[in-house]
Amino acid sequence: MGTELLLGDIVNTNAAHIGQALASIGVDCFMHTSVGDNEQRIADAIAAALARADAVIVTGGLGPTQDDVTREAISALTGRRLVRDPKIEEELRRRFSEFGRPMAEVNVRQADVPDGASIIEQSWGTAPGLIVEHAGGVIYAVPGVPAEMEDMLARAVLPDLLGRAGEPSQIVSRVVRIAGVSESTIAEQLHDVWQILGGETTMAFLAGGGEVRIRLTAKASDPARAHELVAAAEASVRASLGAAVVGVDDENLESVVGALLLARGWSLGCAESLTGGALGGRITSTAGASEYFRGSIVSYATEVKEDLLAVPAWVLDEHGPVSEPVARAMAAGARARLKADVGVALTGVAGPTEQGRPIGTVVVAVAGPLGEVAREVRLPGDRNTVRTLAVSAALNLVRLYLLEAT
Amino acid sequence: MGTELLLGDIVNTNAAHIGQALASIGVDCFMHTSVGDNEQRIADAIAAALARADAVIVTGGLGPTQDDVTREAISALTGRRLVRDPKIEEELRRRFSEFGRPMAEVNVRQADVPDGASIIEQSWGTAPGLIVEHAGGVIYAVPGVPAEMEDMLARAVLPDLLGRAGEPSQIVSRVVRIAGVSESTIAEQLHDVWQILGGETTMAFLAGGGEVRIRLTAKASDPARAHELVAAAEASVRASLGAAVVGVDDENLESVVGALLLARGWSLGCAESLTGGALGGRITSTAGASEYFRGSIVSYATEVKEDLLAVPAWVLDEHGPVSEPVARAMAAGARARLKADVGVALTGVAGPTEQGRPIGTVVVAVAGPLGEVAREVRLPGDRNTVRTLAVSAALNLVRLYLLEAT
Repeated sequence: MGTELLLGDIVNTNAAHIGQALASIGVDCFMHTSVGDNEQRIADAIAAALARADAVIVTGGLGPTQDDVTREAISALTGRRLVRDPKIEEELRRRFSEFGRPMAEVNVRQADVPDGASIIEQSWGTAPGLIVEHAGGVIYAVPGVPAEMEDMLARAVLPDLLGRAGEPSQIVSRVVRIAGVSESTIAEQLHDVWQILGGETTMAFLAGGGEVRIRLTAKASDPARAHELVAAAEASVRASLGAAVVGVDDENLESVVGALLLARGWSLGCAESLTGGALGGRITSTAGASEYFRGSIVSYATEVKEDLLAVPAWVLDEHGPVSEPVARAMAAGARARLKADVGVALTGVAGPTEQGRPIGTVVVAVAGPLGEVAREVRLPGDRNTVRTLAVSAALNLVRLYLLEAT
Repeated sequence: MGTELLLGDIVNTNAAHIGQALASIGVDCFMHTSVGDNEQRIADAIAAALARADAVIVTGGLGPTQDDVTREAISALTGRRLVRDPKIEEELRRRFSEFGRPMAEVNVRQADVPDGASIIEQSWGTAPGLIVEHAGGVIYAVPGVPAEMEDMLARAVLPDLLGRAGEPSQIVSRVVRIAGVSESTIAEQLHDVWQILGGETTMAFLAGGGEVRIRLTAKASDPARAHELVAAAEASVRASLGAAVVGVDDENLESVVGALLLARGWSLGCAESLTGGALGGRITSTAGASEYFRGSIVSYATEVKEDLLAVPAWVLDEHGPVSEPVARAMAAGARARLKADVGVALTGVAGPTEQGRPIGTVVVAVAGPLGEVAREVRLPGDRNTVRTLAVSAALNLVRLYLLEAT
């Protein structure tokens, strides 16, 4: 799997998950490193990491195929020979027969364990994890498949780490999410907040996907003090930025819109064009969306805008499909056809070719009990960036509409 | 940005992109490392990388905010003091006034350059990149924002690297994409292919998102020989796996479905439930989808299945919303209402709560000129994994349907 990471075939989401998990228990993670599926380089990377850290978490390379060599690398590094564990082998065979599948013989390699290592049992899947003490430190090896890695991390690695580390110093982090304002404008508006923060609290920025996030992190020996510092910093940020603040941590645009709809007892329907369904897809990524989401009419072909959203042909002719009047008619059409309290519509030009209007031109409209609003924006980037930003712009307009309905 | 990576707030897609770009020009990338937004640790990581490699690419930390310290780290490491470049400063002010925005003064830091460094000019955005020679090697610093990084990498970093490296040894890689079959079954079916491959060609597996990918990589001093080796390996894989092979490299499920539709002159319409629009969103991620994609009716609420897809109430009552008869009726409804040649429908239970059927139960149906097909599958994983796999299952059923229409 390391080779896949270095060649760029896959993106390292495991590193992000492990980083969050370690921060949550107050363990400092100073570095992560990716190397190819090569026994020597894996062994060297583990050795180098153990030289500067007390513990190393290795992901991937525990599977059944010939490019899975993490077991061999740990064996070579620690001088512990690989021993086939009969209980693991039996368990592997049992699982396969349980699923009524013949077990390919390559799978038996997953029962090989460096002599004296502890086993992290699998809840599902096939490869077990390993805990190996070496050179005064500890190596944790877990599968690269995210669900299996996350399970073993929470169930075995983090508890083992805490046990070895004693009481860690307390880190409390909170992410404030902001929409509709640029990073540099926010930095300028938060200039005074930055001055107020002491050395115990830090503020870091990240822009992307139509929102800016600010991570507030406080470190203290006393957990209550760390929480207090972060809460004070959040209050200062909110006071400076007002309604531009969407929420904190996992309160993203779609979940906040959902909560606002639930609070008002309103339902939502969409009419989409350039996003092809991605707006509805994002709204329904929140569990429980069925309580307020009716559905979406994706009118990618112009004719569908007339047929299913009742956008009048003369409006399309006179203003073109990417225009405020069309977006307003689509929002009203979605509201009516989907029997929703609030309709939101998106039309625009994602590229790569212009369609009467320049690439990046997007019009968003909302229709509901408070009347209609529409907004035309010009979004930067390539086709898929424009589409992602368009979804965020639509969700943010719904959010601001619902905030006014109080 | 490094701190964001280590704390897991964001996922390192830049590492993947850079890995692909380096492989494409035959430069070996042996390791990537992430460190926090800390001047000393950034400097240490660059120094360590330069000790084992000829060139280091650093991403991020060039922005305007106080946590952007890559310039300072390079200055400290190389002993080159930071000098404000008046031309960059003028360019920054010009861009801001061009967009009619006042320039926040923090932006001026982006005009600071280590003495003697070469500048990589920005095409858009604000922070310029840097090329700094040090300790017999070279440091490239580019922004962390993916679009800006990708632009500078292609325009300045790769050409500069090739110039320094002379003629590199030739690597040719190709990814074969497979759908509908498990990784271990594929490994078993490819057992003989593995034996045939010489040491010059390697095969690596990756599963995820409803497909398995196999990366074939050949290394040779002669580029023609490397291409020949990869082509031969691909032919062996195709011979072993047949119609399970979706395509190679960027021929993914959605683009292959698009190409098959275009070849037949047919259009496609969707009816979605648990995916909320994500199927249409994925189909339209392919540029040019407007030539065959009509739209989608997202019937998240059961009532919408009756109103807009004409699924008879008695079918819903008798079989429940997650059933073959309902999926077939939805596909037929999408075909009729969206005036599409082929209709594809998805209904199922994404979780977190069961809805009459167990979580992960998904029914896919296709209706078109060749008649109807439907398939019930049981997908593993959490809510969003089930949704992603459901989209892939639907696209794969359409692909197999279209393959039969020859």
